[in-house]
Amino acid sequence: MTLVVQKYGGSSLADADGIKRVAQRIVATRKAGHLVVVVVSAMGDSTDELHDLARQVSPLPPARELDMLLTAGERISMALVAMAIANLGFEARSFTGSQAGVITDSAHGKARIIDVTPGRISGALSDGAIPIVAGFQGVSQDSKDVTTLGRGGSDTTAVALATALGADTCEIYTDVDGVFTADPRIVPGARRIPRISYEDMLEMAASGARVLHLRCVEYARRYAMPIHVRSSFSSKEGTWVTRRPDPGPERSGMDQPIITGVAHDRSEATITVAGVPDKVGVAAMIFRTIAGANINIDMIVQSTSQVTGRADISFTLPRRDGQAAMSALRGAQDAIGFESLIFDDRIGKVSLIGAGMRSHPGVSADFFGALADSGVNIRMISTSEIRISAVVDAADLDTAVRATHRAFGLDDGQTEAVVYGGTGR
Amino acid sequence: MTLVVQKYGGSSLADADGIKRVAQRIVATRKAGHLVVVVVSAMGDSTDELHDLARQVSPLPPARELDMLLTAGERISMALVAMAIANLGFEARSFTGSQAGVITDSAHGKARIIDVTPGRISGALSDGAIPIVAGFQGVSQDSKDVTTLGRGGSDTTAVALATALGADTCEIYTDVDGVFTADPRIVPGARRIPRISYEDMLEMAASGARVLHLRCVEYARRYAMPIHVRSSFSSKEGTWVTRRPDPGPERSGMDQPIITGVAHDRSEATITVAGVPDKVGVAAMIFRTIAGANINIDMIVQSTSQVTGRADISFTLPRRDGQAAMSALRGAQDAIGFESLIFDDRIGKVSLIGAGMRSHPGVSADFFGALADSGVNIRMISTSEIRISAVVDAADLDTAVRATHRAFGLDDGQTEAVVYGGTGR
Repeated sequence: MTLVVQKYGGSSLADADGIKRVAQRIVATRKAGHLVVVVVSAMGDSTDELHDLARQVSPLPPARELDMLLTAGERISMALVAMAIANLGFEARSFTGSQAGVITDSAHGKARIIDVTPGRISGALSDGAIPIVAGFQGVSQDSKDVTTLGRGGSDTTAVALATALGADTCEIYTDVDGVFTADPRIVPGARRIPRISYEDMLEMAASGARVLHLRCVEYARRYAMPIHVRSSFSSKEGTWVTRRPDPGPERSGMDQPIITGVAHDRSEATITVAGVPDKVGVAAMIFRTIAGANINIDMIVQSTSQVTGRADISFTLPRRDGQAAMSALRGAQDAIGFESLIFDDRIGKVSLIGAGMRSHPGVSADFFGALADSGVNIRMISTSEIRISAVVDAADLDTAVRATHRAFGLDDGQTEAVVYGGTGR
Repeated sequence: MTLVVQKYGGSSLADADGIKRVAQRIVATRKAGHLVVVVVSAMGDSTDELHDLARQVSPLPPARELDMLLTAGERISMALVAMAIANLGFEARSFTGSQAGVITDSAHGKARIIDVTPGRISGALSDGAIPIVAGFQGVSQDSKDVTTLGRGGSDTTAVALATALGADTCEIYTDVDGVFTADPRIVPGARRIPRISYEDMLEMAASGARVLHLRCVEYARRYAMPIHVRSSFSSKEGTWVTRRPDPGPERSGMDQPIITGVAHDRSEATITVAGVPDKVGVAAMIFRTIAGANINIDMIVQSTSQVTGRADISFTLPRRDGQAAMSALRGAQDAIGFESLIFDDRIGKVSLIGAGMRSHPGVSADFFGALADSGVNIRMISTSEIRISAVVDAADLDTAVRATHRAFGLDDGQTEAVVYGGTGR
């Protein structure tokens, strides 16, 4: 008998009909002979509605109270799912994050899971009941206060619970059919990826693919928990996120890069710190200033003028942190000694993800070539072992994604990954 | 420094403006030098909306899950009140019933409080924070499941918490100015009662006065916790519910009845079991049948025909339990041997409440006289030490309430309780 953890997102639980459909799927899994533990998000837009209520009473609500408020969302959806299952003749018991043993640190709004002690979940399973667990929430180890895990937190709850329970699989149900080689809304010929490694999935998620969240994939990789991302609106196979498969004897010795997909991100902006004196420690001062405002940056480019001896330092950051970063830098202008600041949010980032590309300069060359052939101007570049990213004008982003997808043989109907002979995906 | 527990109902917390107004009142109490603990109900109609959601997914939701669902209501309101207080510059911390140490039995939907261990509430007070506690909810001692206390449960939470914390007063904020000598919508001259004993308040509540719930008053009486019922929309004094005051030396030896008020109830119905054989144990069989259906009955009248030797037994019960009681009795018709059943929901009950009336037959005589003079026909009668109730036709109920209120000198402008010289209310 296998144990499967199923996670259902808000779009699958948008209304009573959605909840009943999810209940039927859970019961079908049970009837197929599996043990099931369910993790749910809040219904549809209810988290946004709770945020709106908070804004109406306070411009800057305390994080502890915001967490207390938002966790009402999953409480409602989990009780309703349990009721709908009971109506189909199976016993279901709902549990809050705290009751399910999801222990976190005290960072309200972005808490990290420290431990999972799912005694009550195991107990419910032993009693023959289907446990329904609130995603996205936990209880802090120190203060016993209710916490939330931040964006995508329900996925992380599901993987963490699957790991703690020793489940065979963690199924993440969503409103798309799986992970695609590119966003099908931009690239009509994008293909579902049947199987992807944790590493590639991490780069896809970090580069803007929204289907799974970074922390959930990191958690799954650490404990080697297989994730199956699939649609709650169909019974089709989705995408399996697993360890990178052993290439097998016939491929040993080969280290051809394997192209997985193209991701894009419209949520970033760039800041250019212009006219920075060319002195040791100035760049460190800039990035300490940004870090002090608790802002994560992504790509960095520095260019030094041979004439003035001064440098321009540009970096990308989440667009929503733009104001905060600009204020922090302005406050440090005298100390850093730069001349001016330029903020630009009309940018987009396109990323090519695949294993082993760093050691194949041909991949970068083809990537840049594809963008150039489509008339797309590259503004910044960064690479990792399994990713190349380029910042381009926002208006060029769709063209860049399509061109890259085509150039690397990912379009439906093309031979699979022709350029680098990628098989075994 | 006094410690006051304040309870705010759903009508005071209907929207963001209501929540901000409540926050201001809480902060004002704090600024006046008092320690404050707050108990809140769910916002406005939100509990009804959650009930609707439950009905949409299941015709008969499991009680455990219904409790899990409904408790989301106070979770939302308590977090919002805490945020609104923080926005006024004071620290507030919200606590669920479980976190506040409200321990109950496992009777989901109508749990009883077994114990209150408010360690976290005391801790928050010591830290200088204002604790905001979810009313209506607790955690079961045995299974550690979330429970709800049933109708009026938030009032009970407030009194129980006030008792456990050793508070000086429990203030119940509502949308009326206090407890009145009759419902002002029926009797325009009804007066606010400045002070009422627990016993009289219990009879008022049991007889249909909706402002406070029976269990809350029972709890307050057991622990002698003074309750102040008042409006959250004004700063006027309301009604103090306390121990019956010592009559004082100048009144010693006097045992004049003291008329408190007139209550009415439209929520009941009568069932008449007609043609019951006049045998020992038949009445017991009828009421065991009703009790077996978990239905509380109120008044009972038996009349025996001298001709047939058979009896009619009539009793009152909550109207919503009518169907269940009729089915239970029909199922036992052969065993009991009655001839027919008559259900009537076109009735109302008027009750006169006041201390010491049983030993003054004049009170009953005047009560019946007042009804007769107004042309109101009495169908059933019951009395207790401090109450006389009459069942009348539903159409006559308002007339009966007004006539009684006038006859006992309770109308505004009349000398206070002229008939029996009642003072010291």
